[in-house]
Amino acid sequence: MASPRPVDLIRAKRDGHSVSADDLTALINAYTADDVPDYQMSAFLMAAFLKGLDADETAALTRAMLHSGTVLDLSHTPGTKVDKHSTGGVGDKVSLILAPIVAACGVPVPMISGRGLGHTGGTLDKLESIPDFRTDLSIAAYKQQLADLGLVLIGQTAEIAPADRKLYALRDVTGTVECIPLIAASIMSKKLAEGIDGLVLDVKCGRGAFMSSEADARRLAETLVSIGHEFGKATVARMTRMDAPLGRAVGNWPEMQESIQCLQGDVEGLDDLMTVTLALAGEMLWLGGEAASPEAGVAQAQEAIDSGAAFDTFARVVDAQGGDVTVVHDPAARAGMAPAGTVAAPATGYVQAIDAFAVGMTAVRMGAGRRVKEDPVDPTAGLVLHKKVGEAVAKGDPLATLYTARTEDIPAFSSAIGEAYTLADTAPPAPDMLLGRYTMEGWTD
Amino acid sequence: MASPRPVDLIRAKRDGHSVSADDLTALINAYTADDVPDYQMSAFLMAAFLKGLDADETAALTRAMLHSGTVLDLSHTPGTKVDKHSTGGVGDKVSLILAPIVAACGVPVPMISGRGLGHTGGTLDKLESIPDFRTDLSIAAYKQQLADLGLVLIGQTAEIAPADRKLYALRDVTGTVECIPLIAASIMSKKLAEGIDGLVLDVKCGRGAFMSSEADARRLAETLVSIGHEFGKATVARMTRMDAPLGRAVGNWPEMQESIQCLQGDVEGLDDLMTVTLALAGEMLWLGGEAASPEAGVAQAQEAIDSGAAFDTFARVVDAQGGDVTVVHDPAARAGMAPAGTVAAPATGYVQAIDAFAVGMTAVRMGAGRRVKEDPVDPTAGLVLHKKVGEAVAKGDPLATLYTARTEDIPAFSSAIGEAYTLADTAPPAPDMLLGRYTMEGWTD
Repeated sequence: MASPRPVDLIRAKRDGHSVSADDLTALINAYTADDVPDYQMSAFLMAAFLKGLDADETAALTRAMLHSGTVLDLSHTPGTKVDKHSTGGVGDKVSLILAPIVAACGVPVPMISGRGLGHTGGTLDKLESIPDFRTDLSIAAYKQQLADLGLVLIGQTAEIAPADRKLYALRDVTGTVECIPLIAASIMSKKLAEGIDGLVLDVKCGRGAFMSSEADARRLAETLVSIGHEFGKATVARMTRMDAPLGRAVGNWPEMQESIQCLQGDVEGLDDLMTVTLALAGEMLWLGGEAASPEAGVAQAQEAIDSGAAFDTFARVVDAQGGDVTVVHDPAARAGMAPAGTVAAPATGYVQAIDAFAVGMTAVRMGAGRRVKEDPVDPTAGLVLHKKVGEAVAKGDPLATLYTARTEDIPAFSSAIGEAYTLADTAPPAPDMLLGRYTMEGWTD
Repeated sequence: MASPRPVDLIRAKRDGHSVSADDLTALINAYTADDVPDYQMSAFLMAAFLKGLDADETAALTRAMLHSGTVLDLSHTPGTKVDKHSTGGVGDKVSLILAPIVAACGVPVPMISGRGLGHTGGTLDKLESIPDFRTDLSIAAYKQQLADLGLVLIGQTAEIAPADRKLYALRDVTGTVECIPLIAASIMSKKLAEGIDGLVLDVKCGRGAFMSSEADARRLAETLVSIGHEFGKATVARMTRMDAPLGRAVGNWPEMQESIQCLQGDVEGLDDLMTVTLALAGEMLWLGGEAASPEAGVAQAQEAIDSGAAFDTFARVVDAQGGDVTVVHDPAARAGMAPAGTVAAPATGYVQAIDAFAVGMTAVRMGAGRRVKEDPVDPTAGLVLHKKVGEAVAKGDPLATLYTARTEDIPAFSSAIGEAYTLADTAPPAPDMLLGRYTMEGWTD
């Protein structure tokens, strides 16, 4: 039988019917080959957005996107290769700390990262804030470095999941981004193409996350883990809180600096960041077969920091990828950083909340992110929060230090950050950072 | 304030919000000017399909489409200009009979018709089955003939509602055709551009109509009348039955031949067709101010047939538009018509139903319609039903005569037409053809 025409698949999805794996695959392949026009794919995506895709459809979509490009083979490196992906948050520098920890503990981490999106930062932009650091290694160099150092940190290449790149660009301009099956297929097609054996997902939930409701975050976690399982990869999702920025630094180099500090064991006042980082590292060590349980993995991760092994691994990777290692050893030496303004507390009290979305959007306006895809980012722009949720402040205390080259707008940035803070008379309870853990066995705390 | 970006309007509609008249107008104007790409418009159309457009949005869409091209001014012709539009059916040759009747009674009819669509025929294709009949008159010639003869029958020109043409082509390939507000805006933008003062709508309901459910047909009728009212045009909708083909002929010349026969007063066995035709003609005469009531209009319409005035008007219009008048006076003389096969009744009984959709699709396959827009139509292809719903048949009686140049497929056509008939032991009640009448005052029988 001839394949159904694209319009028939659009109509089927529009009417709430399932589309078979073969038909979805044919559609994606034809779209990637430019045989199906954007206007048909965007109608299909909107129908999928509003009518949903079931588990089989989501898996088929992922498979078609995965096989639209190269699927890397990392079998030359022994061991269980494990990566981590975050759905994106503000101040989310977890990958920068966790990847060297996990590699130092003996689990190879082949990490392909993305750029900042909307109000959230991207690991790739953060890595590139290290002067001369190269993220555009060839596939051969990527494989070689993984074998040599157990860790390699690059950006998505043209060979990997080209269908995802094309579909993402279309979704961005057709109002079809915020759709759980489409998000999940996009994430998993890229991650599965890396050649990994296991994957840990950090599904952010809260006002600074793309999923602000817990129900949506849960559904996304379940979808991601199901896809991983479908493809025979050990997959764990942790749902973590993203109401306030993670840690104190927001912006590319500010976050890199804070990450280096954490790798050096200087984690005072960064409980939220380290709780998430160690939990995810523990999962990766467990999946990688280096820890007997996720909890044991947390302890091993802590040891890798305490021993300096994690920091050493990071420094070796920076060196191998051409980065300026002097700034890794002495972050304050990096040129171009100058405090540009301080935000003062408007009253005395306790920090009740810090609106991560508002902070993230302000950081973008300060130069740390892109409003349109073509914008350059300023690697040093951003801010450091001096007061975190639960901390006491006196009127006039510095809440945050701002770094930006857009000095004419400092009053506006300052007031936006001030407004992102909610002060109250009493201290709130410390927020739970870890909101749930999902595997194919189900949810646990 | 700057206009919202197209993606913002897509997202608003996707989330079920209303889009303002200004924003919708800007979107349609930008789309018509090729400043908004097809892939954004198709996502918007799918969101509108699934989330709906309210009355204000539908009116704004109609207005933007109407003003995307020329709006004709027919004030040079005195009187109330009235047109009729059908949502499309099988064997629906009502316009061919009704337009000359109404014009003969003194109400000017400026009719711009479309081609066949899907399983239904189009008035334009039927007119063009008269050898040499021209439907591509200039706007000047259109106006002149209306003034001279009170009737002109042409096809849509490039000047009229170009936004509708562009949108319709996109809807056709993106699964966004069957959407009441989009259908209504498309119909009304074209009809309002004709320069009419009043409009009668034949909203078909049943298995041979685009609206198979009565609820959908009612909603379409209400939407069409509301738009007409919004634009200050007297508008009446009649909902009519379209379960079985209307009349006995299906196909372009077969239907033209039957229409000529009706205009000559030979209406035996065509009760269904004439009931609908006279009811709609009565409405037009009432709207045009030539009849005191729709009922009085029906009587006047019948007189126009009986007196020969309607037939004379038709013959004059064919002559004025270059058509071969000899075939109007002697339809059997038209070249190219030869019976190609007969469908025999498989059993004895009464005709319970004739599936109009199946008959329409078979006629398309026989050459009477187009499977894709570029297909030529065979003007003489089609069929004549010898048995209508309620009539008695004996096994072996001819149910229908087929006309087609695709002679190798006659067995398949014959069996498809045979299967479109349902026979039963008892005669069904005569079907009600007139299912309801809607004006701004509400529904009546």
